[in-house]
Amino acid sequence: MKKITHSHSLYSMINPSSITLVGASNNLRSMGSVLLMSLREAGYDGAMYPVHPKEDEVQSYRAYRSVTDLPEIPDLAVIVLPTAIVSKTLEQCGEKGIRNAIVISGGFKEVGGQGLKLEEELVATAKKWGIRIIGPNCMGVVNPHHKMNTTTLAYEGRAGFVGLVSQSGSFVAQMFDYLNQLNLGFSTAISVGNEALTDTVDWLEYLGTCPKTKVIALYIEGIKRGRAFIGMARSIVPHKPIVALYVGGSEGGRRAGLSHTGAMAGPDQLYESIFRQSGVLRADTLIEMFDFCLALGTLPLPNGNRVVVQTHSGGPGTAAADACSRAGLDFTALSDYTRSKLSELVSATASLNNPVDLTFQKNPQYYFKEIPEALIEDKNADILMIYLIMPIKEIRRRLIQGDVSEENAVKLAEEMILANAKTMADLLKRNNKPLIGYTWRNMAEEHPRALLENGVPIFQGPERAARAAAALVKYKRLREMFSARALKI
Amino acid sequence: MKKITHSHSLYSMINPSSITLVGASNNLRSMGSVLLMSLREAGYDGAMYPVHPKEDEVQSYRAYRSVTDLPEIPDLAVIVLPTAIVSKTLEQCGEKGIRNAIVISGGFKEVGGQGLKLEEELVATAKKWGIRIIGPNCMGVVNPHHKMNTTTLAYEGRAGFVGLVSQSGSFVAQMFDYLNQLNLGFSTAISVGNEALTDTVDWLEYLGTCPKTKVIALYIEGIKRGRAFIGMARSIVPHKPIVALYVGGSEGGRRAGLSHTGAMAGPDQLYESIFRQSGVLRADTLIEMFDFCLALGTLPLPNGNRVVVQTHSGGPGTAAADACSRAGLDFTALSDYTRSKLSELVSATASLNNPVDLTFQKNPQYYFKEIPEALIEDKNADILMIYLIMPIKEIRRRLIQGDVSEENAVKLAEEMILANAKTMADLLKRNNKPLIGYTWRNMAEEHPRALLENGVPIFQGPERAARAAAALVKYKRLREMFSARALKI
Repeated sequence: MKKITHSHSLYSMINPSSITLVGASNNLRSMGSVLLMSLREAGYDGAMYPVHPKEDEVQSYRAYRSVTDLPEIPDLAVIVLPTAIVSKTLEQCGEKGIRNAIVISGGFKEVGGQGLKLEEELVATAKKWGIRIIGPNCMGVVNPHHKMNTTTLAYEGRAGFVGLVSQSGSFVAQMFDYLNQLNLGFSTAISVGNEALTDTVDWLEYLGTCPKTKVIALYIEGIKRGRAFIGMARSIVPHKPIVALYVGGSEGGRRAGLSHTGAMAGPDQLYESIFRQSGVLRADTLIEMFDFCLALGTLPLPNGNRVVVQTHSGGPGTAAADACSRAGLDFTALSDYTRSKLSELVSATASLNNPVDLTFQKNPQYYFKEIPEALIEDKNADILMIYLIMPIKEIRRRLIQGDVSEENAVKLAEEMILANAKTMADLLKRNNKPLIGYTWRNMAEEHPRALLENGVPIFQGPERAARAAAALVKYKRLREMFSARALKI
Repeated sequence: MKKITHSHSLYSMINPSSITLVGASNNLRSMGSVLLMSLREAGYDGAMYPVHPKEDEVQSYRAYRSVTDLPEIPDLAVIVLPTAIVSKTLEQCGEKGIRNAIVISGGFKEVGGQGLKLEEELVATAKKWGIRIIGPNCMGVVNPHHKMNTTTLAYEGRAGFVGLVSQSGSFVAQMFDYLNQLNLGFSTAISVGNEALTDTVDWLEYLGTCPKTKVIALYIEGIKRGRAFIGMARSIVPHKPIVALYVGGSEGGRRAGLSHTGAMAGPDQLYESIFRQSGVLRADTLIEMFDFCLALGTLPLPNGNRVVVQTHSGGPGTAAADACSRAGLDFTALSDYTRSKLSELVSATASLNNPVDLTFQKNPQYYFKEIPEALIEDKNADILMIYLIMPIKEIRRRLIQGDVSEENAVKLAEEMILANAKTMADLLKRNNKPLIGYTWRNMAEEHPRALLENGVPIFQGPERAARAAAALVKYKRLREMFSARALKI
């Protein structure tokens, strides 16, 4: 797998050993300067060569007058210059021997008029020298595994497994914090901009081969090469899930996309059909796209669509049952074996229907281990969805009531939450079935955070959990279908 | 208004000057004891009389052997006892002269069999003495304005304007933190349980007259008195919005509800029709129900459904446009007057279509004042939706880059965020049009929090913002329609 990536023609663009940045200065408000700061803050440790017409030093890096003066041929040029001088600079990059460039600058095709001509010129220069380009009019690339970030915002959170190809730069640069809320991180995210030379299909191919990428996410305002897209996606889906968000299908989305990237959006049914033929899972919102990524990247695929819901409260159980039904999941009756196991663990008021509603608990600890264990092991259950509410404040309060000192209660409560998350994670690992939590508590609280950090997905509200579970079921079917088709070819 | 509430027959149940709690003890793990702690932690400052067969003191309150021994007739009895002795205790309450009781205990109608008979007995006793009952099998009441909380969880957050009637106790007791995340709070929330003597319709009436309640939320698994419900809702809708969540319409929701409250859920169309005839706004999820409450309780009603979206990023703009279209909002072209005003405030790359995409900003401060001001004042705009991202870390970073000391940067960044929130709140107050923010940042961050605390709603994702805006449009129409109908009667 790794070998394939290294040999991919786009590999060195995303994993450069050396970068020249053209357009950074000591004026920290300029966009090029901000990019240099982002690269440094990400901890980029390759060689860095700022190019500046006058300065000898830029942000404490030695600066060069021109790319032609650089002491080596860098793997990548990042260009943040006024539109008019971009092509000339790319020409110099070509002369120097540079073969990869990210063109952040805008003012090309997306503005029409003269911009169209400037983009043609840019493309001609690139082709003349055989330079691969990302952009123009983009936010560049984030590859936290390589400590690389060419966007305007500092990277937050961890290096992760979500590979993103985005026709919006904001959905790369402005999503770091959002992903971090779910304990997710990008493997690599590419803002493709005007897609002058490399487009969504090329980057889809790249992420298909990238070993750090477990799930591919696509933000699409318009696909230019429909047939190529379908072919590429179909070749990837048997071994890696692809999730797409397409917002151009509504009247508002269509008009806004046209004004944003100039993409000619198509009717919703057209894209629905493209995604269906491609084996791509479609998400309705950005939030849902990353929900699906979280579930697909952390959970095993279920054998079927039969869910068991565990709660200790009626309302949350009923709301979850409704959400599961609407998401297309089925409910299974518990086996007699499971029911007899449970009968020893639950109070007399508990309901062993599905949702399993434990009401008052015999032993609160059973809720997090023995009971979910019995449920997930049930032969009829494909998926376990579990209502989780374990506020640290409440645990502390109860410990203190139980005569634990305040100081010890703080420590004990933290330990309990961590132990609980590890128990759940263990349950998930030992059984090869998806286990998904839901809550309405703040996701930044200790308990949801500990679960996410230990690899147990949890969502705010049962609807998101149910739809994420349904995405697993759907991808399982797609993978089987497209693997079978691939064998026939 | 206040007068009406005071004279409402249920007022003293929700605002008692004195409470007797039957079932609390010094065993802090028992449910009755937890309730007493919740009442104390809420700061309840009326007279409190625990009843205990043996103890002289319960949790440092003087305890009494029986309700008949109490030194005065309390306004309310809260009963948390084994099912078998509830009726006997209620009989004693009647003898004492108590006329309001919350029966927390379960084991009645909801368990079937013997429980049916026990509930009949309970009702007969209550009727004999003219005692109003909430429950049985409920979580009781929260009225933070009266520092009253009879649920098992400590109240978190503020006293607010959301009145809730819930057929799930969890959606009262387990929602304190969730509401607090949106800077919302309950005015009063009632867990109606088995609705033996007072039901959803009665409490709907009560909240209709409650001056602290600006929006009524209903969690419904099944309505018993359909005709009465419609009549009551119609009388309230002309002066107060009602939002309902009904989850019994799907197969999963129907079965789970039956097992939870024993409510006979009806087909989804039946409830859809009840809500339509009632003028009740239907929410699809619990999260959406409280989103609607937030918008309806903090924003003026729009004149129409024409939205203007302000962003500085293409993708978030396109996603918002799609969300608005799907929510049924229309886009308006900006007036020439607005365009000429804006042209002085924005950069050359900005798009003055709608969504207004400012791209790079001439002056970042314009984004929060001058630009939204010009947009909200546009004669064609009914609603302003605005993309907001102002992470305190980033502000600090930029201040420090601008040679502000680290210490001052921390202080300055906080001040900037607060000032910004106040500016927005002011904009909202001066113009009588809804202004709604959206972001993907963590809602617990300083900026979203400051906005919410200053009365500017902000949601995670444009979809929630758009649907909340559409709820305002819808309620405006419903209010007009039902006011006109009321006049005809």
